[in-house]
Amino acid sequence: MYKNLRVVPQLIFGRGSLSQLGDVLSRRCTDAGSPVIFLIDDVHEEKPWVRTLPARAHDLMIFVNCDVEPKTRYVDELSQRVKQFSNRRPDAIVGIGGGSTMDLAKAVSLLLTNPGSAAEYQGWDLVKYPGIYKVGVPTLAGTGAEVSRTTVLTGPVRKLGINSDFTPFDQIVMDPDLISDAPRDQRFFTGMDSYIHAVESLRGTYLNEFARALAEKSRDLCREVFLGNIPDREADEKLMVSSYLGGLSIAYSQVGACHALSYGLAFVLGTRHGVGNCLVFDQIEEFYKEDVHEFREMVARQKIALPRNLCAKVTDEQLNEMVRVALSLHPLWENCLGPRWCEIMTPERCRELYRRM
Amino acid sequence: MYKNLRVVPQLIFGRGSLSQLGDVLSRRCTDAGSPVIFLIDDVHEEKPWVRTLPARAHDLMIFVNCDVEPKTRYVDELSQRVKQFSNRRPDAIVGIGGGSTMDLAKAVSLLLTNPGSAAEYQGWDLVKYPGIYKVGVPTLAGTGAEVSRTTVLTGPVRKLGINSDFTPFDQIVMDPDLISDAPRDQRFFTGMDSYIHAVESLRGTYLNEFARALAEKSRDLCREVFLGNIPDREADEKLMVSSYLGGLSIAYSQVGACHALSYGLAFVLGTRHGVGNCLVFDQIEEFYKEDVHEFREMVARQKIALPRNLCAKVTDEQLNEMVRVALSLHPLWENCLGPRWCEIMTPERCRELYRRM
Repeated sequence: MYKNLRVVPQLIFGRGSLSQLGDVLSRRCTDAGSPVIFLIDDVHEEKPWVRTLPARAHDLMIFVNCDVEPKTRYVDELSQRVKQFSNRRPDAIVGIGGGSTMDLAKAVSLLLTNPGSAAEYQGWDLVKYPGIYKVGVPTLAGTGAEVSRTTVLTGPVRKLGINSDFTPFDQIVMDPDLISDAPRDQRFFTGMDSYIHAVESLRGTYLNEFARALAEKSRDLCREVFLGNIPDREADEKLMVSSYLGGLSIAYSQVGACHALSYGLAFVLGTRHGVGNCLVFDQIEEFYKEDVHEFREMVARQKIALPRNLCAKVTDEQLNEMVRVALSLHPLWENCLGPRWCEIMTPERCRELYRRM
Repeated sequence: MYKNLRVVPQLIFGRGSLSQLGDVLSRRCTDAGSPVIFLIDDVHEEKPWVRTLPARAHDLMIFVNCDVEPKTRYVDELSQRVKQFSNRRPDAIVGIGGGSTMDLAKAVSLLLTNPGSAAEYQGWDLVKYPGIYKVGVPTLAGTGAEVSRTTVLTGPVRKLGINSDFTPFDQIVMDPDLISDAPRDQRFFTGMDSYIHAVESLRGTYLNEFARALAEKSRDLCREVFLGNIPDREADEKLMVSSYLGGLSIAYSQVGACHALSYGLAFVLGTRHGVGNCLVFDQIEEFYKEDVHEFREMVARQKIALPRNLCAKVTDEQLNEMVRVALSLHPLWENCLGPRWCEIMTPERCRELYRRM
């Protein structure tokens, strides 16, 4: 049985396309009273474009904090706040930000129509009802959150996505102008998420020709951006397309060892996904040799200083927790190492890997 | 204003995935009485897989003839036949075949919910109501019909697609097993449709980074298939992905001179789209120089004999008609030659081009 992939059914790509958001939303408005909920990364609060957003008097604009990765508890709080804001079901949820903000928007959309806490839906295909119509507007490129069928959340016992056919956005607006002022380091770390998606897809056992073509092109675009000499404007556009293609590729294959280990770091130390991936990837030459070499070339070329010795002071208990979280992600390890992955990636070996980071 | 691209929202890719069609359709069945309509290219009538299709007693299987390109009249006839078959609205229309069959299925789906004749909808965004849920199953790779927002039809006055947001399939099933026994020449000509989509997208003035990435990868895959040395099995899979990416690329950009001229040939002489494109492309070095050279290399490598002197015996009247049809496709010429295309592609020059074919 092959996956019946849910692809985001409507997309707009182009500089300045944020201005079309009003038109997109107006087609969804059912009556004069139902609100549209905007979830916007609070780093953008003072940006001029925020004031141009098509929010009406009865809409709700929430500036979400993504200094830490999204928690299931935060999703529950936001959903509650939306429910209390209006007794009418919102016409749309719009997420404007990086992967964290987009994931929050996707999760809130689902929690408005599915009972209980976000933590109950962490896993594969646990969501029962379609969410509220949702729009994604990325302001960082690389996570693939704009096109993925997951929303990655940290819950009480694990970091794991809500993976379902109801998770993807109904519409995305990809406006390269919005990613142009991302901090340099963050832009790189997030861009590497796309590169690592491509590598993990291409080197994985779940690969097929559909996912391969998307991953190859996504990786090519990362190379143009981080190893080539192209103007920033063009680079932003290519990075945005790379993110889309990489996200689609893993949606039809799977990520691997780097993501699994990075989830462990995030769960225990709160390490952000982009930088966490880079720290991990730098240490797993044994799985992705040439790719790690190319990654280091990009790090050098872009003059990025990777944080070091992150795990120098972790306790044994913390280390065990990281290992538990990482090894719980069976499909990721199976994709990377095949069905007998347990024999290769033992808890001891996993601990060793973490100790190096 | 950028196009808000409608992308086929569900896709399955993989060998043998035709067997999942029953599962796909069962999710759409509203009650026990509404039929599913299968439109299948009649070249497949005796294929073993036809007998495995999930058709129930009250479903309708129509073997459509695609020896000539789809006519608006044929769409009207088929729609009428479906309406007469059952007083219940079908739950789904399934098109299984090459671009012609898939286009017929898309058009019939629209004509079951929109009044009048298919000819009334030839153009851009003339369709008013969503069609019946429709599934595309390609048995040839290259046309991009599985993913495009058009259904190309020959009507009383023109060959022109029904281009609309309601035109794309709701689901596609891409099973490379189904394209493995296509006749060699046809496989090549149809594959070249994909190559030419990529070229026309890449060389066009409507290009953007999204369409560029898709077109570049689509072209790379054509090169692997027609200039490389890869096993047939792998080539089939790559060609299928190339078709998808090329189709998506032109959906976010546009085709160009080759398609415009090829439509003229088809309208007057009934030349099939795939071979027509090849005949035209071979003569338009002035627009796509290196690409035409590469195309000729593929023709030679694949030992394909292109038909020659197709226009040797056409009358002046026929020639004028070809020119009229070709030059009526303004967006294609504008994409190829820019806003002042009229000054470059005069009727006389267009006639000259046809005379060479």
